[in-house]
Amino acid sequence: MQQAAVWRNCSLHDLPEEEDISRTQNLAHVSQNLSCQKMEGFMHHCHRKLPTLLSRTLFKALKRSYISCTIHTSPLVSVPSKPTIPPPLVSRLFQPSNFREGQEGGDMTCRSQRLMLHTGLIHPSNPGCFYYLPVALRSMEKLVRLIDEEMHAIGGQKIDMPALCSAELWKKSGRWELMGKEMFRLLDRHNAEYCLGPTHEEAVAELFASQTTISYKKLPLLLYQVTRKFRDEQKPKFGLLRGREFYMKDMYSFDINEEAALQTYHSVCQSYGRIFDRLGLTWVQVQAATGNIGGTLSHEFQLPADIGEDQLLVCGNCGFSANIETMEQGQTECSQCQTGTLTESKGIEVGHTFYLGAKYSQAFKALFVNASNVPAVAEMGCFGLGVTRILAASIEVMSSEDAIRWPGCIAPYQVCVLPPKKGSKANEATLVAEKLSQSLGNSLPNLRGEVVLDDRVQMTIGKRLKDAKVLGYPYVVVVGQKALENLPSFEVICQQSGETMFLSKEGLVDLLSKAETI
Amino acid sequence: MQQAAVWRNCSLHDLPEEEDISRTQNLAHVSQNLSCQKMEGFMHHCHRKLPTLLSRTLFKALKRSYISCTIHTSPLVSVPSKPTIPPPLVSRLFQPSNFREGQEGGDMTCRSQRLMLHTGLIHPSNPGCFYYLPVALRSMEKLVRLIDEEMHAIGGQKIDMPALCSAELWKKSGRWELMGKEMFRLLDRHNAEYCLGPTHEEAVAELFASQTTISYKKLPLLLYQVTRKFRDEQKPKFGLLRGREFYMKDMYSFDINEEAALQTYHSVCQSYGRIFDRLGLTWVQVQAATGNIGGTLSHEFQLPADIGEDQLLVCGNCGFSANIETMEQGQTECSQCQTGTLTESKGIEVGHTFYLGAKYSQAFKALFVNASNVPAVAEMGCFGLGVTRILAASIEVMSSEDAIRWPGCIAPYQVCVLPPKKGSKANEATLVAEKLSQSLGNSLPNLRGEVVLDDRVQMTIGKRLKDAKVLGYPYVVVVGQKALENLPSFEVICQQSGETMFLSKEGLVDLLSKAETI
Repeated sequence: MQQAAVWRNCSLHDLPEEEDISRTQNLAHVSQNLSCQKMEGFMHHCHRKLPTLLSRTLFKALKRSYISCTIHTSPLVSVPSKPTIPPPLVSRLFQPSNFREGQEGGDMTCRSQRLMLHTGLIHPSNPGCFYYLPVALRSMEKLVRLIDEEMHAIGGQKIDMPALCSAELWKKSGRWELMGKEMFRLLDRHNAEYCLGPTHEEAVAELFASQTTISYKKLPLLLYQVTRKFRDEQKPKFGLLRGREFYMKDMYSFDINEEAALQTYHSVCQSYGRIFDRLGLTWVQVQAATGNIGGTLSHEFQLPADIGEDQLLVCGNCGFSANIETMEQGQTECSQCQTGTLTESKGIEVGHTFYLGAKYSQAFKALFVNASNVPAVAEMGCFGLGVTRILAASIEVMSSEDAIRWPGCIAPYQVCVLPPKKGSKANEATLVAEKLSQSLGNSLPNLRGEVVLDDRVQMTIGKRLKDAKVLGYPYVVVVGQKALENLPSFEVICQQSGETMFLSKEGLVDLLSKAETI
Repeated sequence: MQQAAVWRNCSLHDLPEEEDISRTQNLAHVSQNLSCQKMEGFMHHCHRKLPTLLSRTLFKALKRSYISCTIHTSPLVSVPSKPTIPPPLVSRLFQPSNFREGQEGGDMTCRSQRLMLHTGLIHPSNPGCFYYLPVALRSMEKLVRLIDEEMHAIGGQKIDMPALCSAELWKKSGRWELMGKEMFRLLDRHNAEYCLGPTHEEAVAELFASQTTISYKKLPLLLYQVTRKFRDEQKPKFGLLRGREFYMKDMYSFDINEEAALQTYHSVCQSYGRIFDRLGLTWVQVQAATGNIGGTLSHEFQLPADIGEDQLLVCGNCGFSANIETMEQGQTECSQCQTGTLTESKGIEVGHTFYLGAKYSQAFKALFVNASNVPAVAEMGCFGLGVTRILAASIEVMSSEDAIRWPGCIAPYQVCVLPPKKGSKANEATLVAEKLSQSLGNSLPNLRGEVVLDDRVQMTIGKRLKDAKVLGYPYVVVVGQKALENLPSFEVICQQSGETMFLSKEGLVDLLSKAETI
């Protein structure tokens, strides 16, 4: 917009070539501080001696008086369109494995932590806190979209509650003392007490209670959020599996009575099952203790894994499963079917559901107006999913010792395109690879933004293939000599299944059109 | 998956009707605790007396032994597909204006705060903290996607840094003392000092420094995040405009030298301009003070508004603009063009950019390897956009006193469909409206999830139209008598332009296919 205006006003007799325009597009702002005449000379100048002089001139102009001056009024005619974003280049991805080889920070304690640190998905900060780096964050954002879809499907509505929770709220529920050292506490400048919410039963009950005339017709009401939670763990460990700061999806339900609340409870549990199924995970739902959340019924969703911190008992006969916390010590016979034997196994807890009854709604007077037009206490449930934990736990249970395998639909990128090594016989195929990485993203809606180009062409194909294997891209496309033939073909490695095939462009497009993305 | 298994195993002779299957789909889990025979009778039973008996039976089954027992192995054949999500119903949206009429919480201080509270977009929590309710959160998520697009277009890579920042980091930069009471501080269980990051220059410089061999070829490196920030404001006010907990997009750039850093600075400023243009906002970029962030060059992006807390000086001649903080007291002549007069105006700051130089990179040893293979200190910039503030400020400057107008592309929902009042002459058009609300979302990709149905049919069209106006849906479609004619037509109110028109189904689809969504 602005740039166009500048070009017009200046009526340049010596318009820069297209290539230069793109280099000089940064000038639009600067131009506004220069008279048209000066601008004209300036542009002319730039045209001749780009890019070194341009940047030097720009530099001075910027230093002198950089500021864009005019008020930009709402553009009525042409609003800028969505920007075109080229395929990410592996050489530019901020994924410290690229930057720093061989070194690893911190104590390695489990497979997912080691793999995630090694491949530059996360970087350690304070104990139990991590930087989530670009590739991991992409995966997490997909996971959040998947969770959003499933929460919406059962009527969930997404909200966002403050992390700062007033001590008053927690005193009302009696949990201010109960939570002990696990809760981060602080004072504000007026010496008012707060905690950093590890969970939000109090806050959501207060929100519900503030609405004084909620009709029974509006229930069940399911409110959820995906936010950062805080827990001052004694010993944070296993990377994202037990951190002090992590992302959690927490849903809270309000129902007219126990019966309805249990139906809602059931519907959320089903939804959790669907989420883990869509991720392709093996999971088990076990009877669990209610801990300091409270309530009368609780289940955990566990991924069986050796490094799991939870001890589970599973009946070989009827399949009854429970966290060992809920069982009598030394119990070996299943009380459910009375015939089976309980076997111990270990799991990583990735979800936890609670039927709360009136524990919080009573304390906060979370009332609705019932069919007889009388205020009544809502029955509540609460439902957590560890978002960052699911991310790490998936890697933990699906990967091999030295290569990540992602749940297909949340892999950070679906496709990695490998051009030939610089100077090799197939050198000319480099252009084919570049075009391919662009055209796949443009022609297949499911691959928009999903294709990366491994442009580190100073490295051999073999070395880059090894990296691609460690990073677990579901599809790796090698563009070599055969891409230059009359009927070009491409080597495709499907890392989820382990298959390798040679495909024509059409075959490749057909295969990749089936890649599942969220 | 599971349900299918149950049906098969039970080989029911009396399969429920399709309608009942959807009601009974919650039974899949319960069924696993019942023998096939019992299940059969149970299903049969349900089929006859749905839904009251179903829920009672379910209730008992749930109470007795609820648990899903078997281990769910990774489904190799059919992974559940994406759920189908029906159009949201206005009657069920958690938007407290629907629940509670006439009441308003807290002191109203500005238009956006009043409108957002009144229409149930936000709800007050602690001072300066708000619950973001479903409709507002939808808008915010769109705004974040728009920002993501523009940040990616200039090479930005999204990360996520911990909110808990170690005091050590802040002492290293000298800001631990400097920040004073504006920073929330806390101790962990081991008495280690932390703050809640109001900004992340220290953290990101440390991250960069931890990568010991970043080549100059990898620069510029632009890392950004969209996270919740904390600032202990003395007097939080104006709703989301000045809160203590808010969402901010903060980007940090690393460059090889000052020249390159200033080019990056410029490219980010341009990108900010594009964002505000896409939102249809009137904005101005002004010279600004660097405050406690530091550096040598700084600009603010301001939306002119009477309630703005920033005083700006704008030259009537050359358009030079500055925050009054940066000018000599009483200055009325423009030092830029030396002829114009400076006029005062007010603005809401929505973005702030800083050229930091080596302030942080020096302190944290954020080094890269230059072309001569020698470690050199990176030049940094930092760039903030107030995400929740842009949301509120847009409403502030675009709305009228009693009706919200959104930037079109981030309106929470694009279309609201109004069926006729229950019992009115046009009653039969209700079904048409319901189908329309579904088909628009299905047939137009840009309207997926963007159509709501105002099913509060006990209310007159007039009353619901008034609500729709206050909420500012870009398109309101009234389905009345004319929708039942041989050539059905629909009344469409384009609230952004104020136009009203009558359109055929095809005309409507054509119009709405142009709705811009993100």
